Formats: sequence, structure tokens, C-alpha cells
Amino acid sequence: MGLPSHFELAAVDGAARTGTLTTPHGVVRTPAFMPVGTAGAMKGMHWREVRDAGADIVLGNTYHLMLRPGAERIAGLGGLQNFTGWNGPMLTDSGGFQVMSLSELRKVSEQAVTFRSHIDGTRVELSPERSIEVQRLLGSDIAMQMDECVRLPAERSDIERAMQLSLRWAERSKRAFEMTPPGYMLFGIVQGGDVPELRQASATGLVDIGFHGYAIGGLAVGEPQSVMLAMIEETAPVLPQDRPRYLMGVGTPEDMLEAVARGIDMFDCVMPTRNGRHGVAFTRRGQINLRNARHADDPRPLDESSPWPAARNTSRAYLHHLVKSGETLGAMLLSEINVAYYQQLMQEIRDAISSGTFAGFREAMLSGWAHGDIAPR
Amino acid sequence: MGLPSHFELAAVDGAARTGTLTTPHGVVRTPAFMPVGTAGAMKGMHWREVRDAGADIVLGNTYHLMLRPGAERIAGLGGLQNFTGWNGPMLTDSGGFQVMSLSELRKVSEQAVTFRSHIDGTRVELSPERSIEVQRLLGSDIAMQMDECVRLPAERSDIERAMQLSLRWAERSKRAFEMTPPGYMLFGIVQGGDVPELRQASATGLVDIGFHGYAIGGLAVGEPQSVMLAMIEETAPVLPQDRPRYLMGVGTPEDMLEAVARGIDMFDCVMPTRNGRHGVAFTRRGQINLRNARHADDPRPLDESSPWPAARNTSRAYLHHLVKSGETLGAMLLSEINVAYYQQLMQEIRDAISSGTFAGFREAMLSGWAHGDIAPR
Repeated sequence: MGLPSHFELAAVDGAARTGTLTTPHGVVRTPAFMPVGTAGAMKGMHWREVRDAGADIVLGNTYHLMLRPGAERIAGLGGLQNFTGWNGPMLTDSGGFQVMSLSELRKVSEQAVTFRSHIDGTRVELSPERSIEVQRLLGSDIAMQMDECVRLPAERSDIERAMQLSLRWAERSKRAFEMTPPGYMLFGIVQGGDVPELRQASATGLVDIGFHGYAIGGLAVGEPQSVMLAMIEETAPVLPQDRPRYLMGVGTPEDMLEAVARGIDMFDCVMPTRNGRHGVAFTRRGQINLRNARHADDPRPLDESSPWPAARNTSRAYLHHLVKSGETLGAMLLSEINVAYYQQLMQEIRDAISSGTFAGFREAMLSGWAHGDIAPR
Repeated sequence: MGLPSHFELAAVDGAARTGTLTTPHGVVRTPAFMPVGTAGAMKGMHWREVRDAGADIVLGNTYHLMLRPGAERIAGLGGLQNFTGWNGPMLTDSGGFQVMSLSELRKVSEQAVTFRSHIDGTRVELSPERSIEVQRLLGSDIAMQMDECVRLPAERSDIERAMQLSLRWAERSKRAFEMTPPGYMLFGIVQGGDVPELRQASATGLVDIGFHGYAIGGLAVGEPQSVMLAMIEETAPVLPQDRPRYLMGVGTPEDMLEAVARGIDMFDCVMPTRNGRHGVAFTRRGQINLRNARHADDPRPLDESSPWPAARNTSRAYLHHLVKSGETLGAMLLSEINVAYYQQLMQEIRDAISSGTFAGFREAMLSGWAHGDIAPR
């Protein structure tokens, strides 16, 4: 409440929405997939390729960047956009999630999280206020509140405690954000694990505080897809129609399609680049493992109808060879092919919602992925 | 003798030469630097970047390619150019050098080298005839004779024995090459270590056999630069003016400049990509180690006047961060920056020879490299 909206809905089709989110560094078309440039770089990709693939916005990890090269250093170099050369919109997470998953000797208190850096062992304190300060120093277009994320399965009492702490941190985050210049955004994060009432209570509490957008956190952390989708269904109706909704850390093409069908506008995931490094391609025929010997003599591309040149022009035989040989070029090509496929999917989703044909598009996509790859030669 | 010339000299300036070598896959401007795409890929670079950097021709390693994915397989996929998507001239080595340096349990006989693959331990035999056959299967524009290369320092008797064996293998290679279609080329390789008479005897013997071009092998294997240059001076005058001369495995920018001054036309080396992966940039101000903390807060590019965008636009601070963080993008950017610098140097060398100003250009280059990097901020 009280924060201006930078989000404009252009069309709705069932619960699916398409629109635009205007940031200081440019416009983001939604539904949007944000490739993850963890430490100020997209693994295996040039920034121009990320842009060419169709990404409007990327995600940077506050935890990594605050430890190396450091938030104050990046600020001194003109902010993340200038530092990296990615001159478009950037969303940063709060750092809290990586503290939990990567650092040692962490301790969560009401005030802050303290931990030891996984790089050099130095002791670092991250509070909601410091997280917002770091994200401002980075020049993030969209900052995330600090929250506590509980791995599932977990006891209800643990889930509730973390959700309530996250709500108090949300309030502190919003106060700390007040000094940020206009145009920049702060998103709150819904927690509550797999407990519908806690999800609803969290969402209601966040809406009362008022944010530029709302994320759903603490999902895609090991639970079945059905639980994730059920939690989205519990949460989305509580969130205001005129604010963007971001499902954090998701996911597979199918996850995203199902989440869009339930009203989600934004996604981020390391999957396209990570799976690419492991020899797996995402295509309209599902995931294809290039390590498989069936590709060794196959001159056909991954997808002859892809708009992305590398997916259309590179033979499976060459990709197989590169992956088997551990050549960097294999990871580079599969990363760009996957990021481009994710962006192609988002474009097709936006088009389908705009034209009111999302239900049919969804069926066609699910059917294509389920049908699987072309027959071996 | 007997083989047609595909080399055309355009200008000579002192002993330095510039011209063109016409191959079935395109024209190579000389002096030429060939980046090394060992196993059918340039480490950390897309082929389009290799082309954009100015490379006319690249080198592939027969040893790696025959073991994986296999010469017959590549032939079935249309040859290396088609397989990799690098649709330009390619030179392949004979495989002999890597057998010596990478494989285990190798045994050299008059007939062939037998060894165990470093990939799967299978026993492989490589004869001069099989080497030519493999290179033809790969679709190599320029094939190299199989030779035996002795590491320096070595006994004269060992050097002489290997040189004589290499001459006999040169004859067999030429006979095996006779079935190759017109336009493709075979180069002989001068051996003889650091012994002037042996170098001259080797060169004379090869010229008597007659090749499309002549390589100088067995240098840049640990000897001082002065020895390498002296051996070039002993060899080049024995080689015919109307055939290209290729100094194998060389080298630093300074090595190449000095070799061009002594009549060399072609080079190959892994240094630009290997040093790039290790955080070192080649520039007109010499080598710059991006790991050095002096770059951490430096917003300046490596070379503000470089024609290559990444060298002109990327800050030292960002490169330092990428290198320190082990991000693939650091290796990618420095590899392309280095290959582009090598190609820029070759273009400037060709221009200087064409305009008869090579001596002055050489002094200016040496002085720039010796002067070193700009002062820290």
C-alpha cells in the first residue's frame, strides 16, 4: 500500500496474465524468465547472447556479489549494469537463501543472519537492512526482502516461525528501502511452506505492508510439483491483481507453464545453464541428453525449426562430441540453446495469452514435451 | 618439385614476405596465425568469433580427432569443416607430436608409432600412410607429413637419427598423398634440432622430395629464442621462395615478429587461448595478468584503441573479478581478446610488409611490448 505500480497488465486469459513491468533499466515483458548470472556473469554465455536470446531481465545473487567483488566496490564502478556490461534490468535476491545453502556456521537471530564466507571464511552479518543497502549499492532494479526459507518437508511449527520472522523482516526491509530513488522496486516474499493457511497468512501480511511486487518463495525445494502448484493456487488469489507475481527458483518448462496458468508472471532458475553444462538440451520435444551415444553419428540439429541459430544449425553429432570431450564450447552452445528455448517459450506464452489461446497452447506444449525426441537414425 | 604452387607472394620487405595461400576452403593471407582448435573446437570461443577476430585458417589436432570422435566418423559427417561449422581453411598436424607428448607406452619403429590412447587405453598404430589417410578423412586443406620431433637439449646422434627417419617418412607421406584431390596441400617438416648442418640437410632433402609448403618443426620446445631464430636463419634460405614456410607451435608475439623478419609465413600456437584461460591478456603493451589486484577497481579497458570490442569495452575490474571467481566468461573474453590481438598483429605485419615499412613497425612493436602496461590508477 502506498507504493506506486510499475506493472501494466495487457491481457488476461483464464488466470494467466501478460503485461509489462517498467524498471529504471528498461521494460520487462511478462511472463518473464530471468536467467541467473550468479556472480555477475552468465555461465558460458556472453551478455549479448543473453540479450539476443530474448531475455529482458536477469538475476544476480547478492550473497555472491557482496562477498566478491563486494557491494561497495561494484557501487564505485557504477553498479552491476555498468560493471558487467549487461545494460538491462536486474533483479537481485536478498542473499538470505544462499547464506542458508552455501555458507558455514550460520546463525539466525531476530536481528540478522551471521555466517562465514565460503570464499575466505570471514565472518559476515546480513540483516534485512544490510541486504537492502547491498542491493541498492549493486544498482538492482528489483530488490528482494530478506526472508527465511525452510526446506520441505518440515514441521509446521518451524514453517510458521520462519514465516512470521520473514514477515517482520519484510517490514524492516520496506522501511530500509524508503531511501531508494523512485522507479526502483522492492518485492515481498510469501513463505509458509506447504501449509495453505500459513501461505495465506503470509500473503495477507505482505499485502498489508505493501510492495511493488510479490514473490512466492520456499517452493521448488524438494516437494512434488502438485504441492508447488497447490501452494500457488492458495496464494495467488490473495495477491493484488495489479502487482507482478514472481515464483522464485522455478523451474522446468512444464513448471513454468503450469505456474503461468495459475497467475504467475516471473521466474528464475539456473536450470537452462546448469543442465546445459551437463549436456542436456531443452527443446519443444522435451529434454535431450547429448551424452547419449544415439547422437554420435546424427547430423540433424536439435530442432530444425528453432528460431535460435545454434539449435537449428549445430548437429547432434558435434554437440555429442563436444560434451563427451568436455569442450567448453559444448557447455556454451547448450547454455545459449537452453536460455533461448526458455525465452522462446515465454514469448509463445505471452502471444498465446494475448490472443486468448493459452489453454490450447498449454495442451500443445505439454503434448510436445511428453511425445519426446525424434526417432534415432 | 612436381607439385603445383597455391602460394602467391604479393610483397617482400627484407626477408619478410606477405602473400596469399589458396586452399579448397578459402584464401589465407600470410603471414598467418592459426588458432588451435585441438579437438574440433576452439576452447572458450564460438567459431564465429574466431572468424570475426580475423583468422583465415585454424589448426586441428589429428591425434585428438582420430581418437575421438574418429576420422571415419568425421568423414561420414562431411569432414571437419562441416562437422564443426568452421567453414574455412584447416590445417591438421600429423598426430606424431601429440603421440609423443600425450600417449603412453609409445614405441617408434621404422614402420610406425604404436601407442595407447590417453582416453581409453586402446592400442593404436600411426604410420605416415595412416596419418595422411586420417588427414584426408578429416578433410584437411593442408596436411602435414608425420615426423619425429626430439626435445631439446638432445644428443646430436639422436637428433640426426630422428631427422633421417623424418625424411624417410616424408617420402612415404608424399606417396600416400598422391591420391588426394587437387587443391589440397601437403607440407614437409624440417627437423634437425639445434644443429645447423642437420637443419640444412633436412631442408635440402625435403625440397628434393618436393612439397606444397615447408614447416620448421622441433623448435619452441624449450630452447632459448636465440637458438630458434638461428635455426630459422639456417633453414629459410634453403627453402624455395615460392612456397609457404610454417614455423610450428610458435609462439609469443615477439617470437612471431622475429620469425616473420626471417622469412616465415605461418604460425600456430595454443598460447592465446591457454594464457587467456589462465587470466593473461596479450595487448600492444605486452602481456597483462588480470589476476593482479591492481586491476580490482580499475574501470579502464585493456586497450582503449583496440579494434576488438571486448578489449576496448570490458573493464579491467570486471575481467579481474571474472578471473578471480573462476567464471567461464573470463576465459571466454580473454581467449577472444588474445586471438583477436594475434590476428590484429598479423594484419599490421602484412600491412607493414606491403608498404615496405616492416623494419620501423617491428621496432615500434618491440618498444610497445617492452614499455609495458599503463600505470595503475
